[in-house]
Amino acid sequence: MTATSSWDRFCRYLCVAEQAGLRLDISRMAFDDADLAGMAAAAGRALDAMAAMEAGAIANVGENRPVGHYWLRAPHLAPTPALRAAIEQTITDVLTFASDVHAGRIRPLAADASARFRHALLIGIGGSALGPQFVADALSEVEAAAHGATGSASHALRMHFLDNTDPAGIARVLTGIGQDMGRTLVLVVSKSGATIETRNGMLETRHAFTSRGLDFAAHAVAVTAEGSALDGLAKSQRWLRTFPMWDWVGGRTSVTSAVGLLPAALQGIDVRRLLAGAAACDEATRQRDARRNPALLMSLMWHFAGGGRGDRAMVVLPYCDRLLLFSRYLQQLVMESLGKETARDGRAVHQGLTVYGNKGSTDQHAFVQQLRDGRDDFFVTFIHALEDGCPPTPDVEPGIATGDYLLGFMLGTRAALSEKGRRSMTLTLPRIDAFSIGAMIALFERAVGFYAELIDVNAYDQPGVEAGKKAAAGVLDLQRAVASWLRSHASGNWTAEETASAIGRPNDAEHVFQILERLAANDHRSIRIESAGTALQSRYRWADRAER
Amino acid sequence: MTATSSWDRFCRYLCVAEQAGLRLDISRMAFDDADLAGMAAAAGRALDAMAAMEAGAIANVGENRPVGHYWLRAPHLAPTPALRAAIEQTITDVLTFASDVHAGRIRPLAADASARFRHALLIGIGGSALGPQFVADALSEVEAAAHGATGSASHALRMHFLDNTDPAGIARVLTGIGQDMGRTLVLVVSKSGATIETRNGMLETRHAFTSRGLDFAAHAVAVTAEGSALDGLAKSQRWLRTFPMWDWVGGRTSVTSAVGLLPAALQGIDVRRLLAGAAACDEATRQRDARRNPALLMSLMWHFAGGGRGDRAMVVLPYCDRLLLFSRYLQQLVMESLGKETARDGRAVHQGLTVYGNKGSTDQHAFVQQLRDGRDDFFVTFIHALEDGCPPTPDVEPGIATGDYLLGFMLGTRAALSEKGRRSMTLTLPRIDAFSIGAMIALFERAVGFYAELIDVNAYDQPGVEAGKKAAAGVLDLQRAVASWLRSHASGNWTAEETASAIGRPNDAEHVFQILERLAANDHRSIRIESAGTALQSRYRWADRAER
Repeated sequence: MTATSSWDRFCRYLCVAEQAGLRLDISRMAFDDADLAGMAAAAGRALDAMAAMEAGAIANVGENRPVGHYWLRAPHLAPTPALRAAIEQTITDVLTFASDVHAGRIRPLAADASARFRHALLIGIGGSALGPQFVADALSEVEAAAHGATGSASHALRMHFLDNTDPAGIARVLTGIGQDMGRTLVLVVSKSGATIETRNGMLETRHAFTSRGLDFAAHAVAVTAEGSALDGLAKSQRWLRTFPMWDWVGGRTSVTSAVGLLPAALQGIDVRRLLAGAAACDEATRQRDARRNPALLMSLMWHFAGGGRGDRAMVVLPYCDRLLLFSRYLQQLVMESLGKETARDGRAVHQGLTVYGNKGSTDQHAFVQQLRDGRDDFFVTFIHALEDGCPPTPDVEPGIATGDYLLGFMLGTRAALSEKGRRSMTLTLPRIDAFSIGAMIALFERAVGFYAELIDVNAYDQPGVEAGKKAAAGVLDLQRAVASWLRSHASGNWTAEETASAIGRPNDAEHVFQILERLAANDHRSIRIESAGTALQSRYRWADRAER
Repeated sequence: MTATSSWDRFCRYLCVAEQAGLRLDISRMAFDDADLAGMAAAAGRALDAMAAMEAGAIANVGENRPVGHYWLRAPHLAPTPALRAAIEQTITDVLTFASDVHAGRIRPLAADASARFRHALLIGIGGSALGPQFVADALSEVEAAAHGATGSASHALRMHFLDNTDPAGIARVLTGIGQDMGRTLVLVVSKSGATIETRNGMLETRHAFTSRGLDFAAHAVAVTAEGSALDGLAKSQRWLRTFPMWDWVGGRTSVTSAVGLLPAALQGIDVRRLLAGAAACDEATRQRDARRNPALLMSLMWHFAGGGRGDRAMVVLPYCDRLLLFSRYLQQLVMESLGKETARDGRAVHQGLTVYGNKGSTDQHAFVQQLRDGRDDFFVTFIHALEDGCPPTPDVEPGIATGDYLLGFMLGTRAALSEKGRRSMTLTLPRIDAFSIGAMIALFERAVGFYAELIDVNAYDQPGVEAGKKAAAGVLDLQRAVASWLRSHASGNWTAEETASAIGRPNDAEHVFQILERLAANDHRSIRIESAGTALQSRYRWADRAER
């Protein structure tokens, strides 16, 4: 590819989605018109399937559900008037709630009458956290500042997240909030209402509130499906508020539902513009001409790059600090949707599309060495914004500012990769704001939808996740059995292997060892090690410490 | 593999490095004794090569330098008494400097006499930031709290990082420091002293200091090679202090040099223990019996898993919030070291070992679906700590705490992956502290060193990084040419293609377009768009705005 032909090719394939504010350059993705023509029929079928899904078809065949995240930003497309009304009402409710919080009409109970909420702590994991974390990092101060000027969000809340069951991690976040806990709104987000990590985070948080004499229920908001365990808890304990999750919205596509809208609105982010950006991109990506449809083009590029088997990983390199968390968000959206054992007809296919990346130019100083010189098993998705997104900065050289270098490094890396035959595409946003973030989210959601059609997998279930959860529950049962047996045999000490046999679980000796080692390492737990020797010969004894 | 044999296999292959406090389980990595025997000769050669390197051989043949990061924590191994003295002196200097800062003997100029430094802003990228960021996130409050009890670090500094040339990202960090800028120590870290992103961050920071009437030099500390541009600048402007970088320490293995030690010490982290942990692990991984050498075992497992070509990616899953940044640190250490075009004899090999991952159990709700059901193109490295690392937490069920679930999810996911034939290894640390973090860093450093020997690449250069930098410099030159030409032809307007031709760079039309689009999108720059039409037909004109 000569330089001149690279300009011709750039012009020939540049896809501009004006209304959505997106521009996609696929010229460095190693394909030609014949490749596009060869996929035309499959692309047509993918468009048909997506249209059927938007009309209410049971797209999630595994779980026998329609898939309606596109309705969230275009409620008039919802298949029934009742659904449309519910979506619209929820958006209104979120906005009203946020504005009541900002205005102090909804305020902390314990504090003085003029106090307002200052922090929001979101407790959730996976689809209930990754979208909100990405949006918060991308937009929080940007949007709060823009609104602040007009006064509507000068009381924007500061976000915190609990997204794991690591006690040290939980302690760190709660310590960070510290004395401000009394001015903290807690958002407990779980579609099923039964996610263990979320329940654990909620219980520790409630304990922290109670320890400080604060009424947890008066600070707590649930986002969950009607009738879930969490819904029942929130109602029975009279939590401040509950917002709905619907079974036709998957966790990984829930960022334009109350899951994403509520924390965004509380941070002063313009939720209507986020929805408008997503709606505009949805509209642009219903286009049947592949050359003018950036989501369809993207899915075709994924297909060409990886031979329809994901043989090349997607390396996400936003040249923009605010998009650092986008790859982490995409890991769920893409890998949980596409990483499937079987096609829809049950054939074993072991599909997937690996996603990783952080940000440029930072990653140029980390793994770009391998991208250029090493294994050719990836394609890069560059992302950048035209506007700097901050006040004018001083020159670092005559006529040159830091942002000029940011673009320079992106184009330089793109050229250096291309020179070695490595593939890349480039997504250009006009700026980082609620509209463009909404559009970008919708772009990748639909690209995933199209690609799932091209490779014939159900993008909307996650059967493999259950196995790990069940196995974990088994480990907890084992811990209970081990503790119970050692307690009732407190006069002696036993190895892991002996303990496993004694409780009738000789095949679980490995897990018994891991459980005992961990309990013994924590002084406040009731197991201790006697006569160590090497690790595997350690003998454990019950020692009735005053458990908390 | 039956459950009983899994326990036998676990016991058979468990590698316990007592002094380093590490335990490595490789039982789920799909290899057998014959595989180990087959690699015995190669492993022996790798041990010999590492021993020669530690004795001062020119291990970095590409850049004709010895490689001495192991001397940093065992100065008595340095090849000359002068080098030994320099290493020891630097450690002492770092500790003295940090304790002077903590005690207020070194203090901000502008503030009142009792004021102390409260923040440290590290400006660096790649090897000058990833290690310090990882260590800060893993250890900061843990260690400050431990020391705080004995009073020695009750004035620990809070860390901030600038690791890019994104003006909005820089603005966000500087705004976050805000009014505390007068109590902020600035650490400018660049081995070569010529890293553009670092220079840009430093210039913007200096501008921010000056705008507030603060004397930047009195707040600024350089960590750089003697005689570098940065060294010269720091001396000529009389910066507060300079600490040395050595040419025998690579950026990605510099965390136990002043690069990592200085910010760690300022945060109140026990730098001597960090070094002791690294030294203990170095000692444990000089062991010639592969079965007792966790770094050598790890490198052999990488080799078996990926056929010596990196065909399986390393997915890093620490079940520990504090280790979230470890995979990002490892991406550089592993991929920049191993992602090479040629073997040491010049043969094209296109090697590499891809690294990604965040933390468990969070990632179970993101991409673990693909790991279990989808492409079998990875192995997992689980990492966990036995001690919770926080005060006792309330039960979430009778006798069960959040940390029990964290282990349960890890073991559950390990079992669910194993059930489907997916590979994993598990690294167990006693706790998260300076010693164990030092040991873990040293473990992976040496595993990378061994693996590079097994695949015969130079782990210590990064030739591919230069190409992108050069191409970026070309883009900046192009911007200057474009701006200059448009300025001198301000009476008209031109398309990108016309501009490229006019400046004699018709082959660079694509970059000219990108440059013009970005400049035009930022109101304060002197380019504007006239008569848009579709993007590619846009015409640009010089508009002499009052540049800052």
